[in-house]
Amino acid sequence: MKKESIFIAVIGGSDVSSEIAGLAEEVGREIARRGAALVCGGMGGVMEAACKGASEAGGLTISILPGDSRRDANPYVQIPIVTGIGYARNVAVVKSAQAVIAIDGSYGTLTEIGYALQAGIPVIGLGTWSMAIDNKTDDNIIIAKNAKEAVDKAMNLALSR
Amino acid sequence: MKKESIFIAVIGGSDVSSEIAGLAEEVGREIARRGAALVCGGMGGVMEAACKGASEAGGLTISILPGDSRRDANPYVQIPIVTGIGYARNVAVVKSAQAVIAIDGSYGTLTEIGYALQAGIPVIGLGTWSMAIDNKTDDNIIIAKNAKEAVDKAMNLALSR
Amino acid sequence: MKKESIFIAVIGGSDVSSEIAGLAEEVGREIARRGAALVCGGMGGVMEAACKGASEAGGLTISILPGDSRRDANPYVQIPIVTGIGYARNVAVVKSAQAVIAIDGSYGTLTEIGYALQAGIPVIGLGTWSMAIDNKTDDNIIIAKNAKEAVDKAMNLALSR
Amino acid sequence: MKKESIFIAVIGGSDVSSEIAGLAEEVGREIARRGAALVCGGMGGVMEAACKGASEAGGLTISILPGDSRRDANPYVQIPIVTGIGYARNVAVVKSAQAVIAIDGSYGTLTEIGYALQAGIPVIGLGTWSMAIDNKTDDNIIIAKNAKEAVDKAMNLALSR
Repeated sequence: MKKESIFIAVIGGSDVSSEIAGLAEEVGREIARRGAALVCGGMGGVMEAACKGASEAGGLTISILPGDSRRDANPYVQIPIVTGIGYARNVAVVKSAQAVIAIDGSYGTLTEIGYALQAGIPVIGLGTWSMAIDNKTDDNIIIAKNAKEAVDKAMNLALSR
Repeated sequence: MKKESIFIAVIGGSDVSSEIAGLAEEVGREIARRGAALVCGGMGGVMEAACKGASEAGGLTISILPGDSRRDANPYVQIPIVTGIGYARNVAVVKSAQAVIAIDGSYGTLTEIGYALQAGIPVIGLGTWSMAIDNKTDDNIIIAKNAKEAVDKAMNLALSR
Repeated sequence: MKKESIFIAVIGGSDVSSEIAGLAEEVGREIARRGAALVCGGMGGVMEAACKGASEAGGLTISILPGDSRRDANPYVQIPIVTGIGYARNVAVVKSAQAVIAIDGSYGTLTEIGYALQAGIPVIGLGTWSMAIDNKTDDNIIIAKNAKEAVDKAMNLALSR
Repeated sequence: MKKESIFIAVIGGSDVSSEIAGLAEEVGREIARRGAALVCGGMGGVMEAACKGASEAGGLTISILPGDSRRDANPYVQIPIVTGIGYARNVAVVKSAQAVIAIDGSYGTLTEIGYALQAGIPVIGLGTWSMAIDNKTDDNIIIAKNAKEAVDKAMNLALSR
């Protein structure tokens, strides 16, 4: 896959601390610097901060909205996709990407992690959900320590797909 | 809410051990005995076993299928809903119920747990996923020790909604 | 296909004249009398009248709702399916049936006619849309003169699938 | 609305004559020349020809795919959105646009016309479906005689929204 056509999804809650928002903004910026496009759900919180970071660094921001109007999109969204299908759109957010970066996270983020892992799309975690079943921790989320490492890992995994 | 109109969703993987299938069958049976209807995704594994248990105990089995044909449904499904929307149908499985029982579980089950908790629909767990974020375990899944306890809890929570 | 497991969808607008509502009620009643189940979108107008007719004649009424709550369903719905996917649920209404009866109709009805014909599901029309392309009338909607004839045709076509 | 952010949807069948494909290509080209982005379903026929025209004229092509892989997209798609929800994605194609141009058309096109008119999104027709109900022709599709006129009308209507 050519670097220019890589889409990295950034997922996380719509209502987050300024610290988490700062991290998401940095992730967005790093994605743009590497020439990939950012995909997200288009709302506030992690999504808005990531779009801000990517957009200000000259990157492309694509958002897949749950509602019926592009006016719902945060101000940094360049390509608003209006689905009208509610949170069922979560599956489209991850399927449109070659790698997913999960930052912190709400229950919606959990659905997106589930959809990504089910489809074999790599998930990189920054302080996000960890899951266990039958006393066995799921180790399919790739842990990153910071924004730069998360985006490096996402790009490498996306390029090798 | 009247007991007759309660829908309990049973979620879990489509490929499970005979032990898990036995547990799901017992859950289905208990749901039917209490006069509630069973909702599920209509495929194999936990879904088929739960439908078998409910159906053989005289209960109603409703399934929300991902594909384009009712022929995909397991043989114990009485009401096959054909969505054609793939795994985006997971959101409809939980939203159609007043309580959800999660048994063991795949990544698809994780998406259903996320959708249920996001919508405030109670989730009762039988050896299912546990999740943590920021080193804090999410305690919104109500743990049950056996099929009977799971269905008792699901019915009580559904009736009080 | 066994008669007991036939699902007939009734589609039409949510805001109709009392004459159209009377016709829809008669269609619902005839479906129930033949032992088939009624599938619809669960809202008002044609959907409510058809559910009323089927329900009062002892039939089963299944509805696939666009919103997030079963409280949106009309009072004659017995099996409310809550999708949360908005009008994308129109595709599930027709795919869940073996034949579709279109009565009068809004633009939503037009989408359902399109989905049914695309999937090869027979559509019987009672004063519904007619379409033409390239000055050629589409003759795939089977015209019926009254409720009884519409349900007769729907049952015959459903049984032969 | 600024001209740069206008999305025009082009809808039509996936298997069309070379004459229709030529018309779709011209429509795509005209959309690009006016600085708007093209939205479509991403498959063959009208969709591919429109993407080719827009792309070769330097425009942006956004596609909302029904399946599970961006590999399904035609070669002229620049922004592939992967929904995994099948033809329920038709609603997202039209909701993402401020005006829709329908060229010729299959039953899928009919669903998209229905969704657009239901949502109040203007539809411009080039040899597409015409519909009537109760012996009254629906006059909400705005007829155009050629590609240039269709795109002129679409742009004017989109800008005034």
